[in-house]
Amino acid sequence: MNNIKITNCRIFTFNEENEIIDQGEIVIQGDSISYIGKVRDNHDAAARESCTRVIDAGGQVCLPGFINAHTHAPMTLFRGYADDLPLMTWLETKIWPAEERLKGEDVYWGTLLSCLEMIKSGTTTFNDMYFFMEDMAKAVTESGIRAVLSRGLIGLDENKAALGLEETEELIARWHQSAGGRIRVMFGPHAPYTCQPDYLEKIMKKADHYKLPLHIHLAETRFEVEQSLELYQMTPIEHMESLGLFEYPVVAAHCVHLSPNDIEILSRRNVAVAHNPGSNLKLASGVAPVPRLLEAGVTVSLGTDSAASNNNLDMLEEIRLAALIHKGVSLDPTVVPAYKALEMACREGAKSIFWEDEIGMLKPGYKGDLILMNLHKPHLCPLHDPAAHIVYAANSSDIETVIINGEIVMENREIKNMDEEKIMYHAQKQALALTGGIADEGAVD
Amino acid sequence: MNNIKITNCRIFTFNEENEIIDQGEIVIQGDSISYIGKVRDNHDAAARESCTRVIDAGGQVCLPGFINAHTHAPMTLFRGYADDLPLMTWLETKIWPAEERLKGEDVYWGTLLSCLEMIKSGTTTFNDMYFFMEDMAKAVTESGIRAVLSRGLIGLDENKAALGLEETEELIARWHQSAGGRIRVMFGPHAPYTCQPDYLEKIMKKADHYKLPLHIHLAETRFEVEQSLELYQMTPIEHMESLGLFEYPVVAAHCVHLSPNDIEILSRRNVAVAHNPGSNLKLASGVAPVPRLLEAGVTVSLGTDSAASNNNLDMLEEIRLAALIHKGVSLDPTVVPAYKALEMACREGAKSIFWEDEIGMLKPGYKGDLILMNLHKPHLCPLHDPAAHIVYAANSSDIETVIINGEIVMENREIKNMDEEKIMYHAQKQALALTGGIADEGAVD
Repeated sequence: MNNIKITNCRIFTFNEENEIIDQGEIVIQGDSISYIGKVRDNHDAAARESCTRVIDAGGQVCLPGFINAHTHAPMTLFRGYADDLPLMTWLETKIWPAEERLKGEDVYWGTLLSCLEMIKSGTTTFNDMYFFMEDMAKAVTESGIRAVLSRGLIGLDENKAALGLEETEELIARWHQSAGGRIRVMFGPHAPYTCQPDYLEKIMKKADHYKLPLHIHLAETRFEVEQSLELYQMTPIEHMESLGLFEYPVVAAHCVHLSPNDIEILSRRNVAVAHNPGSNLKLASGVAPVPRLLEAGVTVSLGTDSAASNNNLDMLEEIRLAALIHKGVSLDPTVVPAYKALEMACREGAKSIFWEDEIGMLKPGYKGDLILMNLHKPHLCPLHDPAAHIVYAANSSDIETVIINGEIVMENREIKNMDEEKIMYHAQKQALALTGGIADEGAVD
Repeated sequence: MNNIKITNCRIFTFNEENEIIDQGEIVIQGDSISYIGKVRDNHDAAARESCTRVIDAGGQVCLPGFINAHTHAPMTLFRGYADDLPLMTWLETKIWPAEERLKGEDVYWGTLLSCLEMIKSGTTTFNDMYFFMEDMAKAVTESGIRAVLSRGLIGLDENKAALGLEETEELIARWHQSAGGRIRVMFGPHAPYTCQPDYLEKIMKKADHYKLPLHIHLAETRFEVEQSLELYQMTPIEHMESLGLFEYPVVAAHCVHLSPNDIEILSRRNVAVAHNPGSNLKLASGVAPVPRLLEAGVTVSLGTDSAASNNNLDMLEEIRLAALIHKGVSLDPTVVPAYKALEMACREGAKSIFWEDEIGMLKPGYKGDLILMNLHKPHLCPLHDPAAHIVYAANSSDIETVIINGEIVMENREIKNMDEEKIMYHAQKQALALTGGIADEGAVD
């Protein structure tokens, strides 16, 4: 059994008291934290217990691993394939035709590539919605990362709709709570405009049966809201409320275009919002009213969305964007302060995927999911306030060590469970085939 | 004399034809580019000329170095010292009291720290406005970077106003065109609200005498515009136009709050705008109307502003923000496409500091200012479109080699002319003294 001691670091616990421990120490036994507190000296018997590894993290900051609350990992294969286009041109001429050609093998390599990128940028858990979920689960298992998987459910074709639910049930049977507890499953109704009310009813019934939460896209674009008002005389949020969706635990991605009544509903119903600032900006969806959501007490977490619309899975960038754009748009420099933005990526992330009993904080009994960040760099000097540096100045290459479920998956930026070159080779090959040979190998050796 | 050959890279020239060369080669002789084109084989006599260094840049992309068109380098000492505060609280209780204590030694170490950070993130030229400019010029000389220096001119106190002009003239005499041509000087009237019309007249007269351009802050906040309308019944831009400022070459930082008439003036008068998206968001100044400026044909470059309001000097972040926020705010995904954002940091940057005859493009006769970026990374895989990757997915640690004025100042991320540890040590020490011992050394070894 692993028994890792990390010592001499400053620890942002994100526990209920928001404790920050200087000269801190963490011991992980098996997959969980057994001690967290001040560095203990050798007079303390408990501190002398044998450790398989001692990491001296002097000069580093320790945080819970980031939780990417909304992504589509395999779409990393479409990173940079099509940019700066109107939404429908992008979808109809680029993304959908390429997705039509998708196979399980693509999803496997695309997910491995994403896991590699996410671990290298400090993400220890991601919340996904996509297809070929068996292949995604295999990749997640191999990579060492933690994930919540939802098979995307689209009701536009009756057979495919039924197949989606069948595959979700198979996914639950085979993979829920698997990989040492690293994998969980949710139900993934894609969006109100792709799931008619009767299909949503079926999905809710199944979610109720399995007692599993739901992951859905809501109010992403102005067009979606206008269409919903026309069809149902209700906003997407009001529509979902009227169908009873929010009687179940729901994480709603985006929530960019919200009325005051929508915000009241999200707050009253404890719907968690996964905010995706990078993707919302790049696709020109708009800027979500995050300060108003926070004021209303809504749980707001952060997601990258897919690398097709981001174009990376770097949570530090989403943290920074969340802390910057709402200030600029509201003309108020006090909204979404640095610590709050970090919290959205840690504790609030865990709450939004209904896993707050095990991850998102560093405390005894919680899973050993954490990152070590080196702040001894020119762009992080001088050191006045570590939280401000992480949010406003650091970049993901400052993250040196990542531990997930008690396993060291990256140390000094070296990945432990995956072959980086092999994954990049296969991902490039699959991407080339999917995009009709347009992928550009010119500058790749 | 240096004679460096860089071979096997993809070159973004940013020349007038926006040429992109696959399998390209660049030769630098002394401080300037002597050849740029396809890789030549050894049958070509010119290619066999002796080189002091050959860099095989296989798998890398070569770009002109980034030009940071607006910053205050020494303020890096205040990085993370005060964040998330209302503008006047931030200035009055934090930044101004600390600046009151500033000495030449602080400016020297603060500038060295900034040069270190800028070179490590691919900036080869910066345009600065600050005080103790002798000390800044010394640091610039030592670091190997290229810079345009303006002594900040504030007219609120008559003696200080006169001293500012005197010091500018001394700066010109001692430092203009020094350091192998790497240093140039401009006049730096701080802003309309700190320089009364009669002081601006004096500054313009001097600028005319020395035939040097001017660097000024304009229309940064809504408050500034309101105050100008009240005092002069003119916007800051109209006010400057009425005083004749725009008859001289001017680079105006910020330009966030602009009327249609302001944009027309900037366009007609060829005023260059240095856009600072990160700082404008963080200080909640707002979002500059960049798409409208570009439509009007205004030269728009990018700046970081100081690390006190950014909180880093990473031009890749400004490039990304410029490409993202205007899409999100205008709800149009086609504005500021990837290549345009890069151009703003390269060729448009050079134009905005009136140095477009020597830098900002890669072509024969131009200065050897360039960067090599490694795109063979998980977060940049697969490779469909290198420009999109640089703008939307890369981070500054992907920049491996930096050449300025024909000198290799960083190679494989190793800095050549500066001692990183020594600079960080002194910067931390000076910062501690300036901020009254509040600087936090807890997590620094």
